[in-house]
Amino acid sequence: MRGQSSAAEVEERETVRALKKNRIETAESMAARQRDISVSEFFAKNRHLLGFDNPRKALLTAIKEAVDNSLDACEEAAILPDIFVSIEELGNDRFRIAVEDNGPGIVKRQIPNIFGKLLYGSKFHCLKMSRGQQGIGISAAGMYGMLTTGKPVEIISRTDPGKPAHHFLLQIDTKKNKPEIISDKEVEWEVPHGTRVAIELEGKHTRGRQSVDEYVRQTVIANPHIRVRYQEPSGELITYERSSDQRPGHTSEIKPHPHGVELGVLQTMLRDTKARNLAGFLQSEFSRVTQRVAEEICANAAIAPSLSPSRIRHQEVEKLMQGIAKTKIMNPPTNCVAPIGEEQLQRGLESTIPAAFYTCTTRPPAVYRGNPFIIEAALAYGGEGQEADEPARVLRFANRVPLLYQQGGCCAYQSVVQTNWRQYGLNQPRGTLPVGPLTIIVHMASVWVPFTSESKEAIAGYPEIEEQIVLALQECGRRLKLFLSKRRREAEAQRKLDYLEMYLPHIGIGLRELLNLPEKEEKQLTDTLKELLERHRG
Amino acid sequence: MRGQSSAAEVEERETVRALKKNRIETAESMAARQRDISVSEFFAKNRHLLGFDNPRKALLTAIKEAVDNSLDACEEAAILPDIFVSIEELGNDRFRIAVEDNGPGIVKRQIPNIFGKLLYGSKFHCLKMSRGQQGIGISAAGMYGMLTTGKPVEIISRTDPGKPAHHFLLQIDTKKNKPEIISDKEVEWEVPHGTRVAIELEGKHTRGRQSVDEYVRQTVIANPHIRVRYQEPSGELITYERSSDQRPGHTSEIKPHPHGVELGVLQTMLRDTKARNLAGFLQSEFSRVTQRVAEEICANAAIAPSLSPSRIRHQEVEKLMQGIAKTKIMNPPTNCVAPIGEEQLQRGLESTIPAAFYTCTTRPPAVYRGNPFIIEAALAYGGEGQEADEPARVLRFANRVPLLYQQGGCCAYQSVVQTNWRQYGLNQPRGTLPVGPLTIIVHMASVWVPFTSESKEAIAGYPEIEEQIVLALQECGRRLKLFLSKRRREAEAQRKLDYLEMYLPHIGIGLRELLNLPEKEEKQLTDTLKELLERHRG
Repeated sequence: MRGQSSAAEVEERETVRALKKNRIETAESMAARQRDISVSEFFAKNRHLLGFDNPRKALLTAIKEAVDNSLDACEEAAILPDIFVSIEELGNDRFRIAVEDNGPGIVKRQIPNIFGKLLYGSKFHCLKMSRGQQGIGISAAGMYGMLTTGKPVEIISRTDPGKPAHHFLLQIDTKKNKPEIISDKEVEWEVPHGTRVAIELEGKHTRGRQSVDEYVRQTVIANPHIRVRYQEPSGELITYERSSDQRPGHTSEIKPHPHGVELGVLQTMLRDTKARNLAGFLQSEFSRVTQRVAEEICANAAIAPSLSPSRIRHQEVEKLMQGIAKTKIMNPPTNCVAPIGEEQLQRGLESTIPAAFYTCTTRPPAVYRGNPFIIEAALAYGGEGQEADEPARVLRFANRVPLLYQQGGCCAYQSVVQTNWRQYGLNQPRGTLPVGPLTIIVHMASVWVPFTSESKEAIAGYPEIEEQIVLALQECGRRLKLFLSKRRREAEAQRKLDYLEMYLPHIGIGLRELLNLPEKEEKQLTDTLKELLERHRG
Repeated sequence: MRGQSSAAEVEERETVRALKKNRIETAESMAARQRDISVSEFFAKNRHLLGFDNPRKALLTAIKEAVDNSLDACEEAAILPDIFVSIEELGNDRFRIAVEDNGPGIVKRQIPNIFGKLLYGSKFHCLKMSRGQQGIGISAAGMYGMLTTGKPVEIISRTDPGKPAHHFLLQIDTKKNKPEIISDKEVEWEVPHGTRVAIELEGKHTRGRQSVDEYVRQTVIANPHIRVRYQEPSGELITYERSSDQRPGHTSEIKPHPHGVELGVLQTMLRDTKARNLAGFLQSEFSRVTQRVAEEICANAAIAPSLSPSRIRHQEVEKLMQGIAKTKIMNPPTNCVAPIGEEQLQRGLESTIPAAFYTCTTRPPAVYRGNPFIIEAALAYGGEGQEADEPARVLRFANRVPLLYQQGGCCAYQSVVQTNWRQYGLNQPRGTLPVGPLTIIVHMASVWVPFTSESKEAIAGYPEIEEQIVLALQECGRRLKLFLSKRRREAEAQRKLDYLEMYLPHIGIGLRELLNLPEKEEKQLTDTLKELLERHRG
């Protein structure tokens, strides 16, 4: 080839040389600039992806991430959470936020990683219902604080009343995505066990629908078992006492379900497993695969159950996928998902939203892409503070966490809009929310909530999830209809009785004249009629 | 302390012990499960964040990422791009996509990293106008392919006709975020220099607004200098020839502008700089900082210009920030941003959208958060295929890349809706798009486009950006108004002339009778009038 370069090739080569001379980029010069990007650098530059778009949202997101962690830790350790949230205004759009819990505390060696490193955590690699899942949130909040104020994150934590409390000042080294310890000492702390994190950040404190106040209030609705004290920037302390002493049901980690697995993931699992044969692999790595099911999958895939996983080639993985698809497998276990529960949810609602009528429903567990989930819905109708001629309010929750942003992009909101509320006696302009003094609550509990972004603001629209939400809303809607029609019937009956009562004396007079009754009997008659009326009214 | 434990402490300790017995989590047991999450694992699980939500979008996203890379490489190497895109249908919702370019090629040692590692690239760490910016796209496409089909990515690349072409089969090791080389060999390849990437993936091929067809067509609008051949799954080959031989203007990398820097970033820069004093640091690390400006910043901050950057403490960084804010600094240079240009944009439009009227405008450069950007807008009105009673179509572009998803969340779309089109003679229902046979084009060129997600589908709504878009649209709107009123005037004039012409003979008769003219003169008169009329008509 070399000796026989065509004219085109020669020309090309000359072009390349000419380009090099003119300092235009070549493959070599471009290669010299390629390098690794740390995940912290990435998210520092793209922090709107994590919910730190603007000062107002940043203040809320930072508090939310800290509270999520506190509640998760308390529940894992079976402690009834007692949380103290405070916001201190420092002037110049700066705030110091602090969240303190009575959780199990964090062991000293893990504190720097948990607060000073993105993508570090215990929840990502397992399928378990929890508020946090990505291992990003609290470190990102600290990073945002550092970027906007230059101040490190302050952490105090103690794991046992007999052990010392550790105090850290930390920063993220964004170039390396590693914690940098500014100081580390033992301190006196009155809390027997728990964690306190404080972040100084640029923020903006507001009231209204997307405020910290609202976030705290909604957190109480979905978590009637927590006690929260919230100190506003004004210094005012708001206390929400527990409305229930019942902790959320214990949830356990589950293995993935075969029907949710993807070819590439299956391939990696086969390579990494310690199982010695295919049947053993299927039983040990997936949920709901018994020996019988494993054998059926192998038969459907036409692969020997005794084959070593490491010897399975690409084509056989495809056959295995087909085998799995053909095999009927029991739905995943659902003890891994704990709903709030109808009674608890109603308590949470009653303690925060005054209304004339409440109804709550918890759907049976369902499955999307192999992940079990439970949908709950509730309605609060009538009462003060709910406007009769405004669209209903929708409160969305995922694993007990309020979602305050991106309502329009959320499957929960879309399901509310899709539901036909007219059939339940409400006014609903086409394609929008029903109108009335109504608050609609939707909660999704799952081992893996499919958020549409890392900032965890909206639930992605899987058809299985939408279906469950609509069914839950319809159930609540039917009960609301009964309430509304009963109220309407009662009002109607009352109206008729009032009407009759008004004409009762005239009836008496008419009957007396017709039957020629003495006045005394007329009185007796109208009294009897009145009594009859009263009885109906009761 | 130990000897004097209070009753509460003793109780707490006992609780902790009891909890441990019941296998409930403690700080220690939780710590044991904490671990690193690789960025590949993160995005594999959250791949909807990268545009791989569903098979239809995944097919488009994979092609888009490959074409983005090809066009960026060609432009950096000053080569007129010649791109071949193909989609082959393999059955069972599987496709093999391939994108081949005549770019500078990729040096062998970099191929595995570029295609087999997330967050690796040359564009993230600099401020330069380019299509790619995150170092995620093409590796994520390969990872999606691997996850859904188990097949590796195939790459051929050659940097020089005198050098061999390298052929790679690669996979991402998601647990480590590292490339895994399946095979690596030299091959015969007829292309003198360029790169070809092929990915097998689960997808869905459709037509319409969010299809690959539409993406290719819109890419041609914003890049009239490229030649694209596109082979559809049906086997049909569609060729878009260049409508211009003019390459986009050369853009250079810039340094950040002081007015866009944040406290935390400034702190890190001060620590990492090689400059020996503050004044030198400001001049070498930022754009538009001359010696005079540097001294003014230092004076405004009340810090000595001779201070060593490494000795600047937190409080001084704050003062420095205030000093920067107080100092008037020239806007950043704008040679780093190259617009498509009005003439080029019009060529792109004419070659793809038939219309009766075109107008394009390029705004002067502007700045958001220290980043220079240029907004361009264009209108195509009338013509076949544009419906008169439908809302206008909006085509959005960022750094010459069409944005096909998340229209509602995009600042470009919102700016179109905000613009009052009624003043330009169009019908526009409240809060929506104008109605008419109209296509509206908005292009943002910048060294850093603020996307709302990694999948780069929508531009975030910075007020400075919105303002420029609205101004550009208003400029186009005014020109459209002139066109429409001219056309209306012409139609009106035409109508009057037609009317006159109809009555011309009667006028002749009337005049003859009135003036008692002979028939010959009447004929002459009407002919003269007719001629007059014709002249007006012309």
